[in-house]
Amino acid sequence: MAKVAVLGYGTVGSGVVEVLHRNADLITARTGEPIEVVKILDLREFPGDPFEHLVVHDIKEIVEDRTIRFVVETMGGVNVATDFVSQCLRAGKSVVTSNKAMVAANGSMLLKLAQDNDVRFLFEASVGGGIPIIRNLRSCLTADHIEKIFGILNGTTNYMLTKMYEDGADYDTVLKEAQDKGFAEADPSADVEGWDACRKIAILSSIVTGKAVDFEEIHTEGITKITPEDMAYAKQMDHVIRLVGSSIVKDGQVHAMVAPMLFDKEHALAGVNMEFNAIFLTSDMLGDTMFYGQGAGKLPTASAVVSDVIEAVMSPTASERPEWSADRIPVAALGKEKRRFFARVAADKAFVTELEKELGSLWVIKVEGLGGELGIVTGEVSEADFMLCEQKHPEIISKIRLAD
Amino acid sequence: MAKVAVLGYGTVGSGVVEVLHRNADLITARTGEPIEVVKILDLREFPGDPFEHLVVHDIKEIVEDRTIRFVVETMGGVNVATDFVSQCLRAGKSVVTSNKAMVAANGSMLLKLAQDNDVRFLFEASVGGGIPIIRNLRSCLTADHIEKIFGILNGTTNYMLTKMYEDGADYDTVLKEAQDKGFAEADPSADVEGWDACRKIAILSSIVTGKAVDFEEIHTEGITKITPEDMAYAKQMDHVIRLVGSSIVKDGQVHAMVAPMLFDKEHALAGVNMEFNAIFLTSDMLGDTMFYGQGAGKLPTASAVVSDVIEAVMSPTASERPEWSADRIPVAALGKEKRRFFARVAADKAFVTELEKELGSLWVIKVEGLGGELGIVTGEVSEADFMLCEQKHPEIISKIRLAD
Repeated sequence: MAKVAVLGYGTVGSGVVEVLHRNADLITARTGEPIEVVKILDLREFPGDPFEHLVVHDIKEIVEDRTIRFVVETMGGVNVATDFVSQCLRAGKSVVTSNKAMVAANGSMLLKLAQDNDVRFLFEASVGGGIPIIRNLRSCLTADHIEKIFGILNGTTNYMLTKMYEDGADYDTVLKEAQDKGFAEADPSADVEGWDACRKIAILSSIVTGKAVDFEEIHTEGITKITPEDMAYAKQMDHVIRLVGSSIVKDGQVHAMVAPMLFDKEHALAGVNMEFNAIFLTSDMLGDTMFYGQGAGKLPTASAVVSDVIEAVMSPTASERPEWSADRIPVAALGKEKRRFFARVAADKAFVTELEKELGSLWVIKVEGLGGELGIVTGEVSEADFMLCEQKHPEIISKIRLAD
Repeated sequence: MAKVAVLGYGTVGSGVVEVLHRNADLITARTGEPIEVVKILDLREFPGDPFEHLVVHDIKEIVEDRTIRFVVETMGGVNVATDFVSQCLRAGKSVVTSNKAMVAANGSMLLKLAQDNDVRFLFEASVGGGIPIIRNLRSCLTADHIEKIFGILNGTTNYMLTKMYEDGADYDTVLKEAQDKGFAEADPSADVEGWDACRKIAILSSIVTGKAVDFEEIHTEGITKITPEDMAYAKQMDHVIRLVGSSIVKDGQVHAMVAPMLFDKEHALAGVNMEFNAIFLTSDMLGDTMFYGQGAGKLPTASAVVSDVIEAVMSPTASERPEWSADRIPVAALGKEKRRFFARVAADKAFVTELEKELGSLWVIKVEGLGGELGIVTGEVSEADFMLCEQKHPEIISKIRLAD
């Protein structure tokens, strides 16, 4: 029997216990031995919970228990989680986590620690919830160089952008609705400011390059400035707006960014609505592939954690090289990146003619009911040139990048 | 060094040699040892080909070469391929194949043979081309019961259905165009009659159930009867038509079928256009997931083959139970299946009122320019009841099932 301890009995942690319990037959058939949760670490008590008797309050009870060879970390947060996970790895236990903040901040160190102690450190659920993207990058797309990643990596913001598009509602109304439905937290900053997506694209970039990508170097914009007017222009252009984490590996640098982007409705990512996530990859042999599913939620995330536990039980020793080393790969500065921009301008067509002298020819969009302004779309322009132009012309109200 | 032989130097076989060659550095980094193609079996000569010197014409030269531990089968066909693959497995060589016809016909036997000889038999490229669906079912979605599979499994027919929808062209015109572009073969039967998709849904159903599914038991319809009128109705309904292999496991039976189906445009599969494939899964913990990519083509398929070769090189012995046993799981008879049907009827509304007495209330669709007929959509009706109704009323011109 494989004995497992769970650190943190919140939404995901209790989901892990539920999945292991409900699908026990299936899991035992796969692994050849039952997997049983024997201890749950949490500061709280859970009177009346069927697993109440497993709750302990001291990490030592898990670290020092030699019968426990597998630990699931679903506490969240960085410092305490990293400390507890390090202790478990050093004690020769494989660790599975859903904690993207910890993986983005300390992944290199924890991967090395697992390698040094000949155990596994797995984190499928840290990106894309139930979408098995990490295992696909590691085990399935093995014959390919991954050239580009485009990911809708945050369910909360995708839900909000979908509702704003469909209902024409403004940001604050949709945020309140998302909070009421439990899709957004009371403090929604990590989601709506793009910080969550930033950590996830850093993790994916690290796996693809095999080197450490510092998430703090990644230019990150959220969706807080997206307006109903932007949605009206998007509709007129037959586009949708999605918050995307993107990453391109080129010339020894990672060209990564998190920002809202306009997608042509024909793009596969444009059909990813509501709380769903998707990761779109371009690679040299396979061409385009996409992985789509529930990006969050108790059971989908727990299922991803359990698939890692199954893998750890079946292959408990560090057989492969770690996903990435401690070597850093730099994130390219944004200025030289070339792309197309959409912008709202509080001006008339005469101003557009003026602007074309700086930005080249522009596509003009007029939305009925939006007086005193126009939408423009540029050809390929560098980030630096567009930013200069924005600073020079206060007529430019706002911009959104176009996905290519 | 891992020595590989390739059986069949056609499109996929030469793609495998190309991927192994072009991405040799990446592959060696993953496996820890170089993978080299040392013999290629083909009846033809390839004068001027860079790998001409590797071509042999007798399978014995491969079977009896003890230095070759890995064999790639990309010949196609059933009988000769099965014979050659069996010989290789018996000689202690792991075999990787892209041959869905062979896997659907003799998968149970070949899996057992591999198990008995403690080698691998892998066939990722047999379903979904470059989409890593088999490895996902086997290694990623391990904590879940897969409840339903919906797959766009054939690129040729998806290309044709997309073009018919977009251009309003008829079946023959689009088929000719697909043949001219190399998307359809001179004899397109295997694709357009649904036989290719049928073998693929049988393979997926076998993996999900762990038992042998006989593809000959699966009700299979192709796209040959789809008309521009059907497309006009689909547009009016805001739906698209896709050729789908579907499979639901319920009560110890597989409820599988291949047929064109109407999908609401909001469905994730509705956005899968042109030659792309996608597999949409519903499972008990993860909910809905979808895997999307190039369903065919030289390099995508070859990439999937090479990812299997890499797996075989890294884990050359049969460590797991076979994907499915020789035990058969029956395919449920179609008659009792309940679903919604669309039908064209050469009649007026009075007839619809008559029909509602038999089928319950109907949704009526009128397309401008299509005189003397109506479209109807039923509520949930059994296949048997609808078929009876069709036989009784010659006014019913044709039907297409609705995906739920």
